[in-house]
Amino acid sequence: MSIVYFEDVEVGQKWVKSITYQVKKEEIIEFARRWDPRYFHVDPKAAVSSVFGGLVACSAHIFSILSWFGTHGERRTASMAALGFDDLHMRHPVRPDDTLSCSLTYLEKRESRSKPDRGILRTAASLSNQKNIEVFSAVIIAMIAKRPQ
Amino acid sequence: MSIVYFEDVEVGQKWVKSITYQVKKEEIIEFARRWDPRYFHVDPKAAVSSVFGGLVACSAHIFSILSWFGTHGERRTASMAALGFDDLHMRHPVRPDDTLSCSLTYLEKRESRSKPDRGILRTAASLSNQKNIEVFSAVIIAMIAKRPQ
Repeated sequence: MSIVYFEDVEVGQKWVKSITYQVKKEEIIEFARRWDPRYFHVDPKAAVSSVFGGLVACSAHIFSILSWFGTHGERRTASMAALGFDDLHMRHPVRPDDTLSCSLTYLEKRESRSKPDRGILRTAASLSNQKNIEVFSAVIIAMIAKRPQ
Repeated sequence: MSIVYFEDVEVGQKWVKSITYQVKKEEIIEFARRWDPRYFHVDPKAAVSSVFGGLVACSAHIFSILSWFGTHGERRTASMAALGFDDLHMRHPVRPDDTLSCSLTYLEKRESRSKPDRGILRTAASLSNQKNIEVFSAVIIAMIAKRPQ
């Protein structure tokens, strides 16, 4: 896996990951039982009467899938620490057997004011399903390493 | 567990949950192996050389713990769907054996424009550790049910 350092980042560049993530019903239920056991995440029959009309993945699960994309596939950014996330939107339900793809667009980078070995990077992240409907979007703010000398 | 419906929400009210969540080293590693296997989340020895100086929980894990607080304890809001999160900040590292507490402050509520049975609620959420240092904060935007007639 290649690593994208601060110097490698071109602001404006969009990068669609070549890997995808299929969300299985069993995983939706297992994840939500542990972290967010609302009925529309854990009970397929009861979920039919929810606003979603069926079982959907919980927010923490979708957030975790975004993290998974960050560390899998052909390359990853040299993140030293996640600082925060802005404008995080659950745009469309994630349902059993959805296959998610991930795109990342580098929005802004700046040098650290105090540490010469790193910078701050803002990245727009988006997850879409197999119908090309965006299901999740957020801006990731992270500390990113410069290329080791 | 009592349920907080749209009508019950008093804007400005702060609510500190009486339950706490202890974050174990094994869970930090297990969660991160699955979703965010960077070395400072999965390898206690290597993590010493990271900016954190030791093992820390990954963002998705902390986000999941916030979800856990949302569905455990003495009461929960009648959330119908999470719509998004604003101003999500990882303010301080979460380390093995940290014990997290959660506070929620209702910021704003408004009726749904199209559906008479629900509203939109903005809630400031905060997680703090056993030293009362804030480790995580975010604003949750959720669809919330009115009390069933």
